[in-house]
Amino acid sequence: MAKVEWFAVDWGTSNLRVWAMGADDGVIAELNSEKGMGSLRPDEFEPALIELISSHLADGPMKVLCCGMVGAKQGWSEATYANAPCEPGKLSTATNVEAKDPRISVSILPGVMQSSPADVMRGEETQISGFLAENPNFFGTLCLPGTHTKWVQISAGEIVSFRTFMSGELFALLSENSVLRHGVQGNDWSKRAFLDAVDDSMGSPQQVAGRLFGIRAEGLIGDLGQGEAKARLSGLMIGLELAGARGYWLGQDLALIGEPSLNKLYGDALDQQGALFCSFDGDDMTLAGLKAAHKTLKADIS
Amino acid sequence: MAKVEWFAVDWGTSNLRVWAMGADDGVIAELNSEKGMGSLRPDEFEPALIELISSHLADGPMKVLCCGMVGAKQGWSEATYANAPCEPGKLSTATNVEAKDPRISVSILPGVMQSSPADVMRGEETQISGFLAENPNFFGTLCLPGTHTKWVQISAGEIVSFRTFMSGELFALLSENSVLRHGVQGNDWSKRAFLDAVDDSMGSPQQVAGRLFGIRAEGLIGDLGQGEAKARLSGLMIGLELAGARGYWLGQDLALIGEPSLNKLYGDALDQQGALFCSFDGDDMTLAGLKAAHKTLKADIS
Repeated sequence: MAKVEWFAVDWGTSNLRVWAMGADDGVIAELNSEKGMGSLRPDEFEPALIELISSHLADGPMKVLCCGMVGAKQGWSEATYANAPCEPGKLSTATNVEAKDPRISVSILPGVMQSSPADVMRGEETQISGFLAENPNFFGTLCLPGTHTKWVQISAGEIVSFRTFMSGELFALLSENSVLRHGVQGNDWSKRAFLDAVDDSMGSPQQVAGRLFGIRAEGLIGDLGQGEAKARLSGLMIGLELAGARGYWLGQDLALIGEPSLNKLYGDALDQQGALFCSFDGDDMTLAGLKAAHKTLKADIS
Repeated sequence: MAKVEWFAVDWGTSNLRVWAMGADDGVIAELNSEKGMGSLRPDEFEPALIELISSHLADGPMKVLCCGMVGAKQGWSEATYANAPCEPGKLSTATNVEAKDPRISVSILPGVMQSSPADVMRGEETQISGFLAENPNFFGTLCLPGTHTKWVQISAGEIVSFRTFMSGELFALLSENSVLRHGVQGNDWSKRAFLDAVDDSMGSPQQVAGRLFGIRAEGLIGDLGQGEAKARLSGLMIGLELAGARGYWLGQDLALIGEPSLNKLYGDALDQQGALFCSFDGDDMTLAGLKAAHKTLKADIS
């Protein structure tokens, strides 16, 4: 078996993902755990990590390079934000964590903040840096769909400005905890209902709180199916966001970085607006960003 | 003690409120229970009611007149909706419930539905009918703030059209279940932050999902206080609604019917827009509506 040289770690709120990396930056093993930052106290991070990677540990110390919410105030150790405009995911500003286990040497990459309008990201900056490592001349907008979708303006290899929209969390709250929850279950989906709702929301975003109750009412007195209702709910949220983020995507070079299913959803909505874009897998970009940061580490040492 | 003649019942999702009424429609006793419709199976409604009113029951049968979610599909017995445009809360279309206890004779007043745009109300129609009993010549708009705020156009004693906004439920979900929840606790309140957020939301409603995350970000990297954050969250939701309901209130005679604290909140926002309005207590209007319906019952019998 190839020898593991270092660990690339994506540690988010609800998941911990580790790639055990070889000397040529090839992936030797991929390890996953549900011990996300949200469920751990500060002193529980190191044991959670060791438990997952122990079979790959040698005498060390082996480099463990982390990104994501692990660097939040409630995380393992707070990693200071870089301040936009800035180059994303630079190892030179990473936070070194004192680990008890001598076999690991842990660093957490910085998130990025913006003063006005106030905004923050943790994890996405590493995906952006991975994207830029593969597309160094990109000039335009990146959209990173998720619970808190980021729209990011990129120029000359830097994050110029960005804006986060809570649309994904709103969709989750409304479909799981609101009066709408009984009407939006199951796996059915109506692309037509989704696209119509995107159009409605973009055309008159101020009607969104009324249209949301309309889903409930039509379920009670009409024959609105679960799949149609769910698609409409999703379309209302994404349409509202596309209206708010218009300055980011209209007439701009645009790339989506996220889970393929989310890229597809945003892609369908953007297609209908006539926007052109490319799509990139979010996990691939995270790994590319951690590799790029690790390369600068090797360059620093040599 | 004056003799109880009938019972006026406001049975909502989370509460059951009963007024024990005398011959002159004076309130002899007010009884409350947390046995709302949301926590009861169909066969548990009668025992919950009897438990609350038993000390006031005579041989009967005594009239029990109900409004609210007790008439929903998941309630005691489904009360058919009246179809807008219509007169609200008419006893002639009430649903009679077969009670096992011979001491009571139960009727549930109908809710109101609207086909297009699809919308429904249960309980508010009784408040409206109470308001109209006291203000028979009113022509204009009623706003009934709550979890699902209703805006209702009234003409010639009828509900002409209405629209429900989920703003109250969105506020509750965001302040209790979202990433914002830690930043909006306590009883502090900033009226300035509330009014600024109302203005922001009315001016560019499409930015609301971004501004919501801004509350989180400013809490992380700035010095946004809990009271300011909570007021801003509330202002964003109410401003979004006022923008969507503009056709209902702009240049219209306007009355608010609701909890005094909610009336105050909506009133502050409407004041800033230069709208004129009167405020009425929601419980008073519910009782007035049940009394008005009971009067038609007495008129029918005599």
